[in-house]
Amino acid sequence: MTMSSPKKADRRRSQYAYQGLERLIHERARLSVLTSLAAHRTGLRFGDLKQLCGLTDGNLSRHLQVLQAARLVEVIKSFEHNRPQTICRLTAEGRKRYVEYLSVLEQVVRDAGEAVKPRPVRRSSRALEQ
Amino acid sequence: MTMSSPKKADRRRSQYAYQGLERLIHERARLSVLTSLAAHRTGLRFGDLKQLCGLTDGNLSRHLQVLQAARLVEVIKSFEHNRPQTICRLTAEGRKRYVEYLSVLEQVVRDAGEAVKPRPVRRSSRALEQ
Repeated sequence: MTMSSPKKADRRRSQYAYQGLERLIHERARLSVLTSLAAHRTGLRFGDLKQLCGLTDGNLSRHLQVLQAARLVEVIKSFEHNRPQTICRLTAEGRKRYVEYLSVLEQVVRDAGEAVKPRPVRRSSRALEQ
Repeated sequence: MTMSSPKKADRRRSQYAYQGLERLIHERARLSVLTSLAAHRTGLRFGDLKQLCGLTDGNLSRHLQVLQAARLVEVIKSFEHNRPQTICRLTAEGRKRYVEYLSVLEQVVRDAGEAVKPRPVRRSSRALEQ
């Protein structure tokens, strides 16, 4: 995904736009999958990943397909003691994009933390803050 | 939304499930809107909210309808100097739900930060981490 760099004034005006929260990663189940895989660098078995994310087989498969098509995740099928095994792993590109996403998410948490911080009541009027 | 409280073992197993990231709030444009409104307690004019979120009129209207239907946001239409004015504001319920969502988002950022932290290389094998 290419993203044009907004001018400084636009960025200030759109302070809460969070363009970097790309839907591919931001969607809750995929955020679970990517965080699990980021925490387990050498990969996770399908069954372990499913448990860590609290997803069903079908749901996890569907989201893995999306992530694999976008080349953020690789899925390796092999045999261990003659039993088929599926290992899921972040690609280098996946890790890079996840880290970029994370920097925007950290900004959201900073802004949100600032926004919900209790403030002393200084006036009782209902005038708009500007 | 009611959510059954999972047993402790389930919670450990589903460490990265993040059930609290409810889609109503997590969706990027709505997260922008709610963060803007959380930061401006007495409300924001429609046009100012639009700019802060980097949304079009149509997009903002659509998301405000969803948030209003869920009673997280209230939209007040009035006149100022004979000109119609639309003010958007978080409801008490909206602020409560936003704060709850935020606590889960903070957990994601903590987990993710831990996951992407550089680690010393201790082995060269490709064995699975368990």
